[in-house]
Amino acid sequence: MIRAFFVAGAFAAGLLGGVSALAQSSADLINDHRTPGDVLTYGMGYNQQRYSPLAHINRGNVKRLVPVWTFATGNALGDESQPLLHGGVMYFTTSRSTFAIDAATGKGLWRHDIEYDPDTLRTICCGQVNRGAAILDGKLFRTTLDMHVIALDVKTGKEVWKTQSDDYKLGYSMTVAPLVANGVVIAGVAGAEFGVRGYLEGYDPESGKKLWRLWTVPAPGEPGSDTWPKNDAWKVGGGSTWLTGSYDPELDLVYWGTGNPGPWNPTVRAGDNLYTSSVLAIRPKTGQVAWHYQFTPNDPIDFDGNNEMILADLKQGGQTRRVLMHADRNGFLYVIDRTNGRLLAANAFVDKMTWASGVDLKTGRPILSQTTKDYLAGNEVELWPAVSGGKNWQPAAYNPETGLLYANTLEGGWLVAPAPIEHKPRAIFFGVKVAKRLWSDDRGILKAIDPMTGKAKWRVPRAVPSYSGVLTTAGKLVFSGAMTGEFTAYDAETGAKLWEFQTQSGIIGQPVTWERDGKQYVTVASGIGGVYHIHGGDARLRNVPTGGAVWTFALFD
Amino acid sequence: MIRAFFVAGAFAAGLLGGVSALAQSSADLINDHRTPGDVLTYGMGYNQQRYSPLAHINRGNVKRLVPVWTFATGNALGDESQPLLHGGVMYFTTSRSTFAIDAATGKGLWRHDIEYDPDTLRTICCGQVNRGAAILDGKLFRTTLDMHVIALDVKTGKEVWKTQSDDYKLGYSMTVAPLVANGVVIAGVAGAEFGVRGYLEGYDPESGKKLWRLWTVPAPGEPGSDTWPKNDAWKVGGGSTWLTGSYDPELDLVYWGTGNPGPWNPTVRAGDNLYTSSVLAIRPKTGQVAWHYQFTPNDPIDFDGNNEMILADLKQGGQTRRVLMHADRNGFLYVIDRTNGRLLAANAFVDKMTWASGVDLKTGRPILSQTTKDYLAGNEVELWPAVSGGKNWQPAAYNPETGLLYANTLEGGWLVAPAPIEHKPRAIFFGVKVAKRLWSDDRGILKAIDPMTGKAKWRVPRAVPSYSGVLTTAGKLVFSGAMTGEFTAYDAETGAKLWEFQTQSGIIGQPVTWERDGKQYVTVASGIGGVYHIHGGDARLRNVPTGGAVWTFALFD
Repeated sequence: MIRAFFVAGAFAAGLLGGVSALAQSSADLINDHRTPGDVLTYGMGYNQQRYSPLAHINRGNVKRLVPVWTFATGNALGDESQPLLHGGVMYFTTSRSTFAIDAATGKGLWRHDIEYDPDTLRTICCGQVNRGAAILDGKLFRTTLDMHVIALDVKTGKEVWKTQSDDYKLGYSMTVAPLVANGVVIAGVAGAEFGVRGYLEGYDPESGKKLWRLWTVPAPGEPGSDTWPKNDAWKVGGGSTWLTGSYDPELDLVYWGTGNPGPWNPTVRAGDNLYTSSVLAIRPKTGQVAWHYQFTPNDPIDFDGNNEMILADLKQGGQTRRVLMHADRNGFLYVIDRTNGRLLAANAFVDKMTWASGVDLKTGRPILSQTTKDYLAGNEVELWPAVSGGKNWQPAAYNPETGLLYANTLEGGWLVAPAPIEHKPRAIFFGVKVAKRLWSDDRGILKAIDPMTGKAKWRVPRAVPSYSGVLTTAGKLVFSGAMTGEFTAYDAETGAKLWEFQTQSGIIGQPVTWERDGKQYVTVASGIGGVYHIHGGDARLRNVPTGGAVWTFALFD
Repeated sequence: MIRAFFVAGAFAAGLLGGVSALAQSSADLINDHRTPGDVLTYGMGYNQQRYSPLAHINRGNVKRLVPVWTFATGNALGDESQPLLHGGVMYFTTSRSTFAIDAATGKGLWRHDIEYDPDTLRTICCGQVNRGAAILDGKLFRTTLDMHVIALDVKTGKEVWKTQSDDYKLGYSMTVAPLVANGVVIAGVAGAEFGVRGYLEGYDPESGKKLWRLWTVPAPGEPGSDTWPKNDAWKVGGGSTWLTGSYDPELDLVYWGTGNPGPWNPTVRAGDNLYTSSVLAIRPKTGQVAWHYQFTPNDPIDFDGNNEMILADLKQGGQTRRVLMHADRNGFLYVIDRTNGRLLAANAFVDKMTWASGVDLKTGRPILSQTTKDYLAGNEVELWPAVSGGKNWQPAAYNPETGLLYANTLEGGWLVAPAPIEHKPRAIFFGVKVAKRLWSDDRGILKAIDPMTGKAKWRVPRAVPSYSGVLTTAGKLVFSGAMTGEFTAYDAETGAKLWEFQTQSGIIGQPVTWERDGKQYVTVASGIGGVYHIHGGDARLRNVPTGGAVWTFALFD
């Protein structure tokens, strides 16, 4: 369903005449991290560094930042989406709508709405959210909760194609921002909490035709199938692909994380359970796997391996390495040679960890603690981090100038025991008994982390943890939000708070920065929701109103 | 029910230590229009001029206005309320909540919530709104949709007293901001759309005890009863008192408007129907009427007489007159000698008027058109203005420096005929058949009106009419909002648009300005709702998201 905006004067289709919404190319996508006039990719570049070379806004003048426009989405279900920007038009998604907004004024240009059968929503575990769109050649690509990938005309919002990925009644859903890599639209699925078998798919951007499907859990006889019990466990083996991968166009490899094996209870699925809780290096044209690395074999705690893969060139022993950095829910920050999957470093980035004492650099495997061994033997134990991880989906940012990774960490654990579980269609597929949820006094910390050691150069503790994305810039700034509404700028070198603005809802979105006519802007969505808001039971969020709105800030001049 | 804010750090009861929330006196209320550090009364002064002597923000620098904080109320039902400000604390009401907000930062200090039996809401005709609070001696007074007046402790939000005014099941409701005059809390009722008999009441601010009730429709034998048919019509005769009156402390007279007679159909209630669609000059201590003036005898069109009464000193023929100005829904702008109720001027302020050709200055009565006479004879006719009036409740502002009244007018009519009507408890009490709603191309116009002639010095046409209040300042500025979200500053002398900001919802609130530590602030609530939004069927508002939020702006420095 497409609706034009009718609001008097404020929303005029004619405005499109004033902005150039030209089709953009694969080359534009490759250069996205270097061209701050556009934001074309999830992560502000294929490398997902969420770093901008813009420095108009910097430590000296950031206190002059003021809102220049706001755009209300009417979405009360949580705004986790990252805006895209092309040709003076901002594109923003919610689980039910896609908006085109004039970036200069904040006026709506078009909107596209999705209606869901309420039955669809029975198997959305963690918030009816959407995390953003992808763009190529005049089309905007997004996913839907009811398992479709759709392409919209960027000029009109009209649907160009709509392809069903699979049947939502199997427990699948889609919240992911697609990735366009080497001319293929790649999208993953959620659902390991409901007993799905995970996969990743490639689509033709022109027609929406499926080009390939990569199952993340092998069928009997396929490579990796020996890491599963010899029963039907693989059929509901999990390994969702619900966060967007990154891409190295020179190596032509996409790095995509996979989720937890199903069920959470590890005792009923002996083995490493490949390729769950892993990163897969994939050829985008074919979906073939070049290499894989498993963060958490036989993942005992629903750690997933989906968190973002940040690509950078890091120095190690005098050598420049093409690495992938990944702060896993399991509490370790992995640095991996992205040419071959070899582990270079893996250090804890959380304050408290009890499930493993480290990662063996030779084997790449975690060194399980006695606590975890007791857990695997069926006992109730206290494990840190807990299911929400040392960091959840909220993406970190990497600043090549400071060499630091900025991440909103979570500092929590739980008292937990394995419990019997049987797969039932569309039923929660956990098999654990949680005796108690545990938290440090500061449930979250914004940390500036040295990737090779996991150690924090500075830290900003938060009583209520942050599920906001992070942005960093050449202006030596770090931007992030709070579920209590504050949007804040920090000094990238010291963590000093330099500026703050109270938006009207909680921030769980992904800030971006961009420029237009020589002026730098910062945009973030504010709209509380998501997994912690729904399941966290945090009384301190009780009075935070639901959103949502897109806020755009610039220096006052 | 009182709830403290728990949001981490953002909301701290301790903040009250940083602001002085001293009790304020009757003298403070009398001086409110001269003391811009506080906003203690509905209308920014007993005279309801909505004029501020502040000029820090002026025509030269208003373009530097930026939002400094926003406070989300979580109210999606329309924000028509005017904020109050005292001792560094802002008080804001919605139909269900009262908020105390730190004016410096926008952080919540306390909130008080009201829960309604859903049955209460059956007889709310025009939006579940509230228009604001009154304040005296450390207590905040407000009304509730279910017919209570309550007093809250300004420091804690705890309820001090709660008095039931009458039974909502009779069709009554309360949305009005109370008036504290000469130490009495005065509050009126709505309900003439549901067959009530209107009244106004005075309460003791200390105890909540009722001091007096003034019926606006006389019982048989009482003065004015001869203006009603000799049947039971008076029992359901209307005359609601749903907008706050103004007060002249020197004359000790409160000027309070009364609403339409019931039912709308005038043919079934022959006579002038006193004291409906009138202004009553009342002694606040006793509720006694000193004089009355009826704007629309036998009100044929639900014009009401409730619109605000703005008090000023105007020159007429070399003489300074203590006047009351009133832009009635019937399309005439009345200037009345407020010492005695004598009519000084009454001129049309709308572009099109067909119901009357003028007002006879000697008798004070409208000169009915043939069209209206045809209507009274039972025929279908085209009448301008229509039920929503030439101006609805949205209060105008008067600037003594320009001598102009700034009002958001409505330019509409209807094709209508009387229809049979019988009173049934809790049922709509109209008795008209509307064949068609008619509008000028510009449904509303912000006009700068000469009070003595009704002529506009300048006009800003609006395709979607504005139901926002107006504010004017010594900075020669006029502020008002739009239901499409824009908050705008105009040059008070020319109407030139000088500044605008897009809030996230539609503005139907009442802007105020105030100062703190030598800095001037402008505050307005944004949250669409109200009668036009609900009943107007305006497709251009379909995509405006519901609010609400309190926005505070200041000059960037």
